[in-house]
Amino acid sequence: MNLSLYVITDRTCQGKRSMEETAEEVIRGGATVLQYREKAPLSTRILCEEVIQLRRITMQHRVLFFVNDRVDLALACGADGVHLGDEDLPVPIARRIAPDLLIGASCDSVESALRAQEEGADYLGVGPVYVTATKPDAGEAVGTGLLAEVKNAVTIPVVAIGGITPENVPEVLQSGVDGVAVIQAVVGSPSPRSQAARFRKLLNTKSLCTSLPRNKEKHL
Amino acid sequence: MNLSLYVITDRTCQGKRSMEETAEEVIRGGATVLQYREKAPLSTRILCEEVIQLRRITMQHRVLFFVNDRVDLALACGADGVHLGDEDLPVPIARRIAPDLLIGASCDSVESALRAQEEGADYLGVGPVYVTATKPDAGEAVGTGLLAEVKNAVTIPVVAIGGITPENVPEVLQSGVDGVAVIQAVVGSPSPRSQAARFRKLLNTKSLCTSLPRNKEKHL
Repeated sequence: MNLSLYVITDRTCQGKRSMEETAEEVIRGGATVLQYREKAPLSTRILCEEVIQLRRITMQHRVLFFVNDRVDLALACGADGVHLGDEDLPVPIARRIAPDLLIGASCDSVESALRAQEEGADYLGVGPVYVTATKPDAGEAVGTGLLAEVKNAVTIPVVAIGGITPENVPEVLQSGVDGVAVIQAVVGSPSPRSQAARFRKLLNTKSLCTSLPRNKEKHL
Repeated sequence: MNLSLYVITDRTCQGKRSMEETAEEVIRGGATVLQYREKAPLSTRILCEEVIQLRRITMQHRVLFFVNDRVDLALACGADGVHLGDEDLPVPIARRIAPDLLIGASCDSVESALRAQEEGADYLGVGPVYVTATKPDAGEAVGTGLLAEVKNAVTIPVVAIGGITPENVPEVLQSGVDGVAVIQAVVGSPSPRSQAARFRKLLNTKSLCTSLPRNKEKHL
């Protein structure tokens, strides 16, 4: 499971590009994971059509695909997994109703990280590392210090998220995390593809591939 | 599967009563099915907590419980099934990802009813029979004529929905449907319990219990 460059979709900052075009671009640039996150009040039918398109694209490029929040949509499109935050289904419930999905969990402390791991999460998204405009409700920046603490405390992969740019990637990587999650810095860039490539190059300075969780060999 | 009095929740018309209190009242009045339908943009976590409460209440009273739209929530709380409209997951996808859930589908024509049956729906909600204020996007009233046509065309149970009141129940029942779905007329009444009882009495003039679909003996 290569979580090194984890790109999250965001309709509000993708400009005139379609969701599919944006996905293609960031994957061609080097994204290893795509997460579909949609906060607009769209119908389940429309969301379903969209995740099916993105699943097709990610499958074609052999890139991991996660759906934010919605286990139903992750199952509907055959995604690799679901990413769960504080306002989504609790990890144990998601694990019970979708035993074959990979589960990512958002954390902002060592305690919440250990709890998510204990509850069965397959990886953690920790942040916001820096202050970020994309997710105003994300809470106070946790800094890179917490990344290292969480990384030392858990055995599952850790992805840093929140305000990560090519400039601060080296500092983030020093914490030992397995990958960085980006939205604005890639999807909101004039050229998502070259920006993803820029991130990927910085990330390749370190081997970031982590081993597969459990028996989930179907996942990349 | 007794679908005779199918009550749908609606936070906007339940007044000062809580969701749980309203559910208890309508069930004590005689509802045979409760459907949770929530159109407000609440988080999945909050919706999940609510369906778990309603599942507890419906289980206690041995009443069928359906969740509108969200297969994830239906699975999370162990509901009997999910009800799907045009803007929700397509029936075949829901059937694939949740083989053990009962599936209801909204229809407004004989064609859509036959298609839903063919796709694996366990019952149909047909309407709006009359014009209704609760669901302004529900389309034009189909009238009771269509209820009889659908009932003759399909083998699965048919529930009439849309603008049904104690006054028009006798006309609706003449079409041969297996039950009536109500929102405003019960949940929006000053006394949901006595109003549910009033409906139930009118419905009891006819035996409306239909046989269990497929091998779903776990369902009531």
